[in-house]
Amino acid sequence: MTTHRFAPAQYYNVLGTMPAALHIASGDTVITETIDAGGHDKDRVKRAPGPNPMNGPIHVEGAKPGDALRVEIVRMTPVSATGWTRSVFAANVVEPEAVRTLPPGESTTWLIDRQALTTRLEYPPTGLEHFTLPLEPMIGCFGVAPSLGQAISTATSGEYGGNMDYRLFGPGTTVWFPVSVEGALFFLGDCHAVQGDGEIVGTGIETCFEVEVRLTVEKAKKLVWPRGETTDAIFAVGNARPLDQALQHATTEMLNWLGQDYGLDATAASHLLGQVVRYDVGNVFDPAYTMACRVAKKWLPPR
Amino acid sequence: MTTHRFAPAQYYNVLGTMPAALHIASGDTVITETIDAGGHDKDRVKRAPGPNPMNGPIHVEGAKPGDALRVEIVRMTPVSATGWTRSVFAANVVEPEAVRTLPPGESTTWLIDRQALTTRLEYPPTGLEHFTLPLEPMIGCFGVAPSLGQAISTATSGEYGGNMDYRLFGPGTTVWFPVSVEGALFFLGDCHAVQGDGEIVGTGIETCFEVEVRLTVEKAKKLVWPRGETTDAIFAVGNARPLDQALQHATTEMLNWLGQDYGLDATAASHLLGQVVRYDVGNVFDPAYTMACRVAKKWLPPR
Amino acid sequence: MTTHRFAPAQYYNVLGTMPAALHIASGDTVITETIDAGGHDKDRVKRAPGPNPMNGPIHVEGAKPGDALRVEIVRMTPVSATGWTRSVFAANVVEPEAVRTLPPGESTTWLIDRQALTTRLEYPPTGLEHFTLPLEPMIGCFGVAPSLGQAISTATSGEYGGNMDYRLFGPGTTVWFPVSVEGALFFLGDCHAVQGDGEIVGTGIETCFEVEVRLTVEKAKKLVWPRGETTDAIFAVGNARPLDQALQHATTEMLNWLGQDYGLDATAASHLLGQVVRYDVGNVFDPAYTMACRVAKKWLPPR
Amino acid sequence: MTTHRFAPAQYYNVLGTMPAALHIASGDTVITETIDAGGHDKDRVKRAPGPNPMNGPIHVEGAKPGDALRVEIVRMTPVSATGWTRSVFAANVVEPEAVRTLPPGESTTWLIDRQALTTRLEYPPTGLEHFTLPLEPMIGCFGVAPSLGQAISTATSGEYGGNMDYRLFGPGTTVWFPVSVEGALFFLGDCHAVQGDGEIVGTGIETCFEVEVRLTVEKAKKLVWPRGETTDAIFAVGNARPLDQALQHATTEMLNWLGQDYGLDATAASHLLGQVVRYDVGNVFDPAYTMACRVAKKWLPPR
Repeated sequence: MTTHRFAPAQYYNVLGTMPAALHIASGDTVITETIDAGGHDKDRVKRAPGPNPMNGPIHVEGAKPGDALRVEIVRMTPVSATGWTRSVFAANVVEPEAVRTLPPGESTTWLIDRQALTTRLEYPPTGLEHFTLPLEPMIGCFGVAPSLGQAISTATSGEYGGNMDYRLFGPGTTVWFPVSVEGALFFLGDCHAVQGDGEIVGTGIETCFEVEVRLTVEKAKKLVWPRGETTDAIFAVGNARPLDQALQHATTEMLNWLGQDYGLDATAASHLLGQVVRYDVGNVFDPAYTMACRVAKKWLPPR
Repeated sequence: MTTHRFAPAQYYNVLGTMPAALHIASGDTVITETIDAGGHDKDRVKRAPGPNPMNGPIHVEGAKPGDALRVEIVRMTPVSATGWTRSVFAANVVEPEAVRTLPPGESTTWLIDRQALTTRLEYPPTGLEHFTLPLEPMIGCFGVAPSLGQAISTATSGEYGGNMDYRLFGPGTTVWFPVSVEGALFFLGDCHAVQGDGEIVGTGIETCFEVEVRLTVEKAKKLVWPRGETTDAIFAVGNARPLDQALQHATTEMLNWLGQDYGLDATAASHLLGQVVRYDVGNVFDPAYTMACRVAKKWLPPR
Repeated sequence: MTTHRFAPAQYYNVLGTMPAALHIASGDTVITETIDAGGHDKDRVKRAPGPNPMNGPIHVEGAKPGDALRVEIVRMTPVSATGWTRSVFAANVVEPEAVRTLPPGESTTWLIDRQALTTRLEYPPTGLEHFTLPLEPMIGCFGVAPSLGQAISTATSGEYGGNMDYRLFGPGTTVWFPVSVEGALFFLGDCHAVQGDGEIVGTGIETCFEVEVRLTVEKAKKLVWPRGETTDAIFAVGNARPLDQALQHATTEMLNWLGQDYGLDATAASHLLGQVVRYDVGNVFDPAYTMACRVAKKWLPPR
Repeated sequence: MTTHRFAPAQYYNVLGTMPAALHIASGDTVITETIDAGGHDKDRVKRAPGPNPMNGPIHVEGAKPGDALRVEIVRMTPVSATGWTRSVFAANVVEPEAVRTLPPGESTTWLIDRQALTTRLEYPPTGLEHFTLPLEPMIGCFGVAPSLGQAISTATSGEYGGNMDYRLFGPGTTVWFPVSVEGALFFLGDCHAVQGDGEIVGTGIETCFEVEVRLTVEKAKKLVWPRGETTDAIFAVGNARPLDQALQHATTEMLNWLGQDYGLDATAASHLLGQVVRYDVGNVFDPAYTMACRVAKKWLPPR
């Protein structure tokens, strides 16, 4: 098992079947530094256009359509002294008539304390003078090349992953993506220091990280949508609009998973999820919204 | 301050401007025993037709349109040895094509251990032999008479409350409803021993409780949608389809609340919620879905 | 068969189980003058509060839950010299970001030429100096008392009818509503001189009409949602949000109708509708949106 | 002005920035034969995989990002003796509970009479023995390369066009697409002999056509979404889910168009569309649904 340090020569605003920038073996680890959603590096130098420029693609040997790519998010180390957010709610998260009352949004700077692992607004408005948040790093956009030779904007998401902006995609989480092309072609970027549910201002705290991931091919893992695992829960992710449809995808994927790996038929899965399921909202800003269907491991039967 | 024991002579399947079954003063406490969503009492005797027969209405002296009715959920004591659920996912929570694969739903019995405060399936399917859940009591349907003289089915919800099936509506939570009629006319019922997010099998564990609530009129509290408070968080609730619209209502209500009571303008509220908001899914089964916009008190400025 | 002239003593802002204002026999005709959506009569005198005050309820002898009430819209004669509209798109029919660019809406007067049967803006803005429209009268809101003793605002709609704002609800059209209470309890009002699809400014041209309808009870007509018939087409109506769900209701109702009355199984109905169906948009302004599923009679097999 | 006969050497299942298969001058005409949605040519020989294999891309000289590509659909001549449809409603167009009652869908053959220009089922089910339809040819999927170097499946649609399945995309209609890449890169395919609104069985009558289009670059035409013109109307198209959002896009595009080319401000455009707009439903089957906002030319002020 090798550890690769990967410094991209170029960045991509789509997830697609591009020439691999790095070839690795299944099980290898990659350490790479991401630039922010607008394409600025840790020194605030513009390195690429937005939206969400990606590091990648990484070709993982042996990955074939129908397989899963397991992505262990080992570590995310902040490498910049600042981050930024949009200052106002996205128009689509408030009632239509309330849009008129929103001020125009602008970019706002947050200071990142890399010793204390906290962040706060550089110029806090009244009422937020003491608003200091612990860092909760997460990957906003990552995934694999989609099917059919598609190349899809990093502003949106689908079965292949993409711009999901789900808080649990942070260190310690393992994610599986359905592979559509030889080598899987993994991309990542758009990391956030902190982000609330829904990414309702249209950004998390956008900044640069050194990210360490371990990429492993799993054979015969039948997934349609991304799946994930944290220390204490498993989850399935759906990406679509409206949220109702994202929820349908996530629930259906979890239903399938509980059948495939935990031996639960539709009735048993219904009894389980019906009483203990948790739904988490990823972004409600992009063309496709994101919903996760999560269940605590303590309720699961042995695999 | 008086405590009233309220045993309804009849039950209602709507929230509306019905003759008050009980008159109380603002600040009084009411203790009442609810029947289940199908109208059965704790001895499994059918006492009323479904859906969700309500205890009430309770007229709270001094409540006028434009006020808020504060409802403190003091206590919920299970009074039945059993509860029931539907056995299969509601058709609308899985992908449309997956509906074909679902077995027909039927009523399933859960045993409630009122000493241990746990519940388990009477006849667990394979894989759920050890699936025993701690009780997490909650009120599925409650609220006040809606505006315009409307009387609305307890199968749905709106600005006045109704069938929201939100897990946090349990003991220790305080809820505010916008008053539309003299006396507010408060209703409650449809209590659950446990329920996952979304009420995705179309039920929680439906059973009977002795519920203790304290009802207080608050003047000049400008709310449009229900608001709530737990030990460590405040939340606003939106009811609509699709979930996107429920989320818009909840977010707009929270935006207004942060302005009214915490002095945050739209930009400050955006910065706060953007990075720390949590969205919780109430039911995604009824005609109107429910979404809560929640924020931990630790992030709020002083009122 | 009797013709009744009905002048309401009061108006209702809900459809519900109110005391009947008129009792008629099945097959009788009713002539009644409606006031406008804001409650003004033909002389601009405020007679009732909005929204959409209703004439009714009319009790039709012999109607029982499970029956259908057939409503033939015989005639709509404009009785006012003016009508009014809101001047700007409703916020929910444009993209959320575009809401900021809309001016505030205000009430605008249209002049109605009752000889020529045309209407035009009293003070047309630049570009609309020659914008004169032929009258296309329609009933914005009508229906029967809903189930469960509900009383539902005339701002919305459901299986019982209500505020559907569908252009084809005009003279010459026959509509069937599912009866939920003894006597059906029919209401009507909120008539429009003209209206585009969607009622996207939040109004049609709101004015007063003398309306003549014939009301007949039909036994054993199994409908869940409103159905209708024009000279050359039949249609089924669904009311819900989002439009996708309204379309599902309308399509399912048409599927059932084609089976019940035209002997088409699901495959035959699919072949028919798949290639010739037309969808019409009722309002996309109210809490529930309206979609009609329409098929030309020339494609239907004999009943 | 040249007429090109274009026989593709390969077909594409995405719209993207592929190497041009044909270079033409602005104003040139192209005649090309399409294969069906499943990749079969007029002799039922499989020539390409589905979904919706495209002829193209055609590079139109001088087209630059920010321009519009005008596509005049001059002629569509059926070239096959048969077409096919799916036999049953798509699961997402009926109520979720009704999905259980649908039989499985299968491919069904329609006979095309190229003299009479009609089509009928080869083996009609009971009730459809006399169901013969006049051909109403239309292009199901066409458009230009999307922005950002994206390549997007022909199963869906967006601002660049794609699989919209809108009935008015037939002979005599002119369409404008927003150009995102040098040369525009035009694709077309997936033609239908007939199709109802919504493409609710998941197909129109899928068959092969000889299509003649004239492609012209228009400078400084500011469009975001596709626009079109028939003999008697203009329309704007939105593609998204839910239909509500597609309608928002289409309405906003029409609002912009009326301002840019007809001198109507937001109030005048509201008055016009509010009373005369028509909404047409394209497909409600694909990931993105399609809605057109249409207005008859007779109501428009002079350009």
